[in-house]
Amino acid sequence: MTGLTDQLIEFMGTSVPEDAAAMMRLSLFDWAACGIAGADETEFDAFVGAQLALHQGGHKVFGGGSTSAPTAALVNGTISHALDYDDTHFAHIGHPSVAVLPAVLALGEQVSCDLDALTHAATIGVEASIAVGLWLGRDHYQVGYHQTATAGAFGATVAASRLLGLDVMQTRHALGLCASMASGIKAQFGTMAKPLNAGLAARTGVEATVWAQAGMTAAQDGLAGPLGFGATHHGQGGNVDLPIDDWRINSISHKFHACCHGLHAMLEALRDTAAQPDQIKAVHIRTHPRWMSVCNIQTPNTGLAAKFSYGQTAAMALLGHDTGAIGNFTDAMAQDADVLALRNRINVSEDARLSETQSELLITLSDGSTESLRHDLMSPMSLETRAQKLRGKAAALLGEGRAAPLWSATQGHSLRVFLDQLVMS
Amino acid sequence: MTGLTDQLIEFMGTSVPEDAAAMMRLSLFDWAACGIAGADETEFDAFVGAQLALHQGGHKVFGGGSTSAPTAALVNGTISHALDYDDTHFAHIGHPSVAVLPAVLALGEQVSCDLDALTHAATIGVEASIAVGLWLGRDHYQVGYHQTATAGAFGATVAASRLLGLDVMQTRHALGLCASMASGIKAQFGTMAKPLNAGLAARTGVEATVWAQAGMTAAQDGLAGPLGFGATHHGQGGNVDLPIDDWRINSISHKFHACCHGLHAMLEALRDTAAQPDQIKAVHIRTHPRWMSVCNIQTPNTGLAAKFSYGQTAAMALLGHDTGAIGNFTDAMAQDADVLALRNRINVSEDARLSETQSELLITLSDGSTESLRHDLMSPMSLETRAQKLRGKAAALLGEGRAAPLWSATQGHSLRVFLDQLVMS
Repeated sequence: MTGLTDQLIEFMGTSVPEDAAAMMRLSLFDWAACGIAGADETEFDAFVGAQLALHQGGHKVFGGGSTSAPTAALVNGTISHALDYDDTHFAHIGHPSVAVLPAVLALGEQVSCDLDALTHAATIGVEASIAVGLWLGRDHYQVGYHQTATAGAFGATVAASRLLGLDVMQTRHALGLCASMASGIKAQFGTMAKPLNAGLAARTGVEATVWAQAGMTAAQDGLAGPLGFGATHHGQGGNVDLPIDDWRINSISHKFHACCHGLHAMLEALRDTAAQPDQIKAVHIRTHPRWMSVCNIQTPNTGLAAKFSYGQTAAMALLGHDTGAIGNFTDAMAQDADVLALRNRINVSEDARLSETQSELLITLSDGSTESLRHDLMSPMSLETRAQKLRGKAAALLGEGRAAPLWSATQGHSLRVFLDQLVMS
Repeated sequence: MTGLTDQLIEFMGTSVPEDAAAMMRLSLFDWAACGIAGADETEFDAFVGAQLALHQGGHKVFGGGSTSAPTAALVNGTISHALDYDDTHFAHIGHPSVAVLPAVLALGEQVSCDLDALTHAATIGVEASIAVGLWLGRDHYQVGYHQTATAGAFGATVAASRLLGLDVMQTRHALGLCASMASGIKAQFGTMAKPLNAGLAARTGVEATVWAQAGMTAAQDGLAGPLGFGATHHGQGGNVDLPIDDWRINSISHKFHACCHGLHAMLEALRDTAAQPDQIKAVHIRTHPRWMSVCNIQTPNTGLAAKFSYGQTAAMALLGHDTGAIGNFTDAMAQDADVLALRNRINVSEDARLSETQSELLITLSDGSTESLRHDLMSPMSLETRAQKLRGKAAALLGEGRAAPLWSATQGHSLRVFLDQLVMS
């Protein structure tokens, strides 16, 4: 039995299965869409400006402009998580792509790699970050660490080490360096520092790797050894197999609705309904108890509050307002008369038999008939279906004029073509 | 009773007592000497080269070259801690200057401040870092956090916020941002990542402050609040008065010997001996139990091991080999016949009645007479005596030709004159 660090080092050379690589392509596409849309969030402009002013360089960032590689990773990681609309892995517990992709993108140009090499490295990194997340465990998250950032930094480091071709000892040092830099706490949730945590993880991947390549040394097992990251950061340190037959990246959840992830199973279930809004007498939603305190705001008055409301989002979906479009989460929508009327006929209760990714609904119509619906976010989805849904989401975010060429670019081999898409105005 | 964050914010505007500011001048001088000497450590060249290659800018770093402000802070913090010869505060538990000074230096040029404003900001920052260190407490250190880096990052942030004139809300956010970036573990001890931890703390101070100034938001109390840095990082969170009448910076310990701090009380005690080496029959050293496993190597064979040996360093001091000169800690010195002969007549035992900063010696001479010596690193030392000792140390490190103008520069008002000293070849 070898420790996690050895597993990660050994894993770095593993060849990537086709399905995993394809999944990564989808995440790349989705993540890029999130970043391009995120660049429109003006509250981050001053921060980005300050960052660019601090450095110079040739690495592209969302929204245009160029900077140094680590700063590009930092800015891109932050900006692409600004909307909190990027991919999630529930076991991780975190958002894998926002930490890993900015790191390999920032370094990709330096080694003149193509998009295949880049996405392979990213796949390795995402898989590694999920494994580290599992290893750190629930305690780490519950005590207050932001796993997207902490486990994510290790994933970014593994990805970057793969891309730059670090040897075993260099990778060991890169992970050791990462152990001193991986950080980020949940106290930041609800502030701009939440997405910043993702950017920090991405930058850590770039820096730990470049520094280790340059000969910087660090703890032999900074992640899992004595006084290491796990020991100090409430890591549980259980056994985690790596790799496994069905790579964990395959169970990534993409967000198809611009609201709290706790609402998504319910909204997916509602896609199948045949009920017309004016025939609906009542909707009863059942969900995992955890979500009751997270996203069950009964009478949201703002667009932001609407993102955390079963009643509001269910009513929107039933009335045909696309919950994948950020622009639909407005104060006006939260106060819309038709939405309110329907919202008042929707109630929610907890059901401990359901998992966090499941939801069940019972719709009662005016004529007394009922319709039962259920959805589990973990249920298998073909890559084709996922691609279709993600293209729809991107079109809702960016318009089809931007979504289509971005999609093409992510399916090609040229890193340059892809990067051009990121910064196109 | 207000929380630590409020205390820090309020404390930021406190005017600096003269003795504290004078102490800071000494630390500035000492720290700069450490950095200039540290730049000669070639093992860090590649790392510095990589860092400079990543960015561009006009901020000076030890050894010449210029870079962006955060990278200058990172490089200067790392390089100036490379020798582990910089100042210490035992309550902190850490090295305050290496985290705080690189941060204010990197930002000083941007606001065109003079050396007075810079050292005042640094004083505030050092005092803050000691307070944060006390607040985090021994548990935090014992579980594996490197307090120089963690508490240091908060100190650097406070110092930088002071220098840039952040308002209360901006400072709150700067501390909140720091809470997501402050990091560094003791697993790095013995590797290049140990000094890197100091550099990371300095960079965090620069970035958290500049970002907060640019409008970046973060947790309202990222340090001491729920899910904050203390709660997640094993902080004890006791009450810490700030400021106190006699500022804690005044009890900083400077290293006057190029070896483990556990040996310093003994070496200071030996300064007072009248014994001639050839008359010494035996030397009995008593020390705090903690040091027995840290720096009591009985038969060191290398210069590095010599730095952790009571017998070796006591013998060197008695034979007139300056323990303040790094160049004296060589393999040859560890194997020197005269040193070995004397070293064999020295024994060490633990004494739980002594504090960690105390040592007692009994020297027995050939004629049967004895001499008792004792020293406490905490015993008062006048600023004049301290200045004299530090100038001697700098001369041993750099030569008098460099030490003298550096001393003058640190006593003046011009930041430019001081910076020129740092990079002079």
